[in-house]
Amino acid sequence: MRFFLVTSRPIRSFFCAARPLSGEPREFGICGTMSRQTNRGTENKKMYWYLPFISPSASLHLMNSELFTLTYGALVTQLCKDYENDEDVNKQLDKMGYNIGVRLIEDFLARSNVGRCHDFHETADVIAKVAFKMYLGITPSVTNWSPAGDEFSLILENNPLVDFVELPDNHSSLIYSNLLCGLLRGALEMVQMAIDVKFVQDTLRGDNVTEIRMKFIKRIEENLPAGEE
Amino acid sequence: MRFFLVTSRPIRSFFCAARPLSGEPREFGICGTMSRQTNRGTENKKMYWYLPFISPSASLHLMNSELFTLTYGALVTQLCKDYENDEDVNKQLDKMGYNIGVRLIEDFLARSNVGRCHDFHETADVIAKVAFKMYLGITPSVTNWSPAGDEFSLILENNPLVDFVELPDNHSSLIYSNLLCGLLRGALEMVQMAIDVKFVQDTLRGDNVTEIRMKFIKRIEENLPAGEE
Repeated sequence: MRFFLVTSRPIRSFFCAARPLSGEPREFGICGTMSRQTNRGTENKKMYWYLPFISPSASLHLMNSELFTLTYGALVTQLCKDYENDEDVNKQLDKMGYNIGVRLIEDFLARSNVGRCHDFHETADVIAKVAFKMYLGITPSVTNWSPAGDEFSLILENNPLVDFVELPDNHSSLIYSNLLCGLLRGALEMVQMAIDVKFVQDTLRGDNVTEIRMKFIKRIEENLPAGEE
Repeated sequence: MRFFLVTSRPIRSFFCAARPLSGEPREFGICGTMSRQTNRGTENKKMYWYLPFISPSASLHLMNSELFTLTYGALVTQLCKDYENDEDVNKQLDKMGYNIGVRLIEDFLARSNVGRCHDFHETADVIAKVAFKMYLGITPSVTNWSPAGDEFSLILENNPLVDFVELPDNHSSLIYSNLLCGLLRGALEMVQMAIDVKFVQDTLRGDNVTEIRMKFIKRIEENLPAGEE
């Protein structure tokens, strides 16, 4: 089954993707149309013509989150019908999130004007203060750093995904918002970071806050396509 | 299979729901908690304590639409896996939309401060200029009124649901955004209006615009529960 969404090219690095865009945010309306036809094998200075493809209209769509929340609920409900146990639903949510993340990162880099992060602390701040704010309208706090600086937690005081939601008793193993973990993993993989992401607390299960734990695994080597520098 | 979202009480009428709230928008943070425990059989002046329940945090969540767009894509993809033909997917999307609509209307009435609509023209304007703007970040134009004034079209020049989307050839009968039809039908049913809603044009199928046709069927009689005026 083909995924409906138009798959875009992998982003080679945070830096490559962000640099040519930083001065050109107003160009997307024009770039958008061209980006579908352009091949990758062009020189660097033209990069912003095809990296990334952003719908010219998309930037106007600032919306309240309730429709998203309810639609996400419908998605989880459907998956619970489709899969026999919660673990399979969790896996599927993670997989869907991953597929979303690898696409959303392009949009994020284009819109946010964020450059290359110099360390994991900076990455954590960008995720919490820019990405979550942009796409979920919330700003989690970054906390519980490991001594080595390779692990931190995002604390969500309000998780818009679970507004109006109560877990039925027979779904005690369901990680309702697991799409977010896959999404973060997928998006970060596109900027060469392998990260382990999981929920360690969840208000839906009675915890006071929702906590997402993120652990840096390794830097992914760039495999540049032949013909590109 | 129980739907995860907390089902809230049916709204008895546009007027009843909107009136007590109009002066009290700041109270929701407080009302929210109480609304779950309160029964319906209270006198009118206390109505705003339980009608409607809005998450105190939800109003802060203004988000870009791309995550919603991609999540909706994952939902449609999943349904295409689950059902054999496009017609069944269309029906399921309509049904999900209906379930979302009957919940979202509460949120809408609380947030929008919109009062009772005096005619179908006013309803059309509220849907296009307030509801679509609030939940999808777009303002469709209202046009193509029937001579009798019981039918109109919403023209969406940009439909955020289909950003990044291309329909594969083997899904030529899929009404990709059909969730919106069910949503409008469900929401309007909660304010006593039976409406027929369907897509008559769609940019995904090569049309220049996306057009949703809405036809007023009848006013639904209120069935007040015993003990209420």
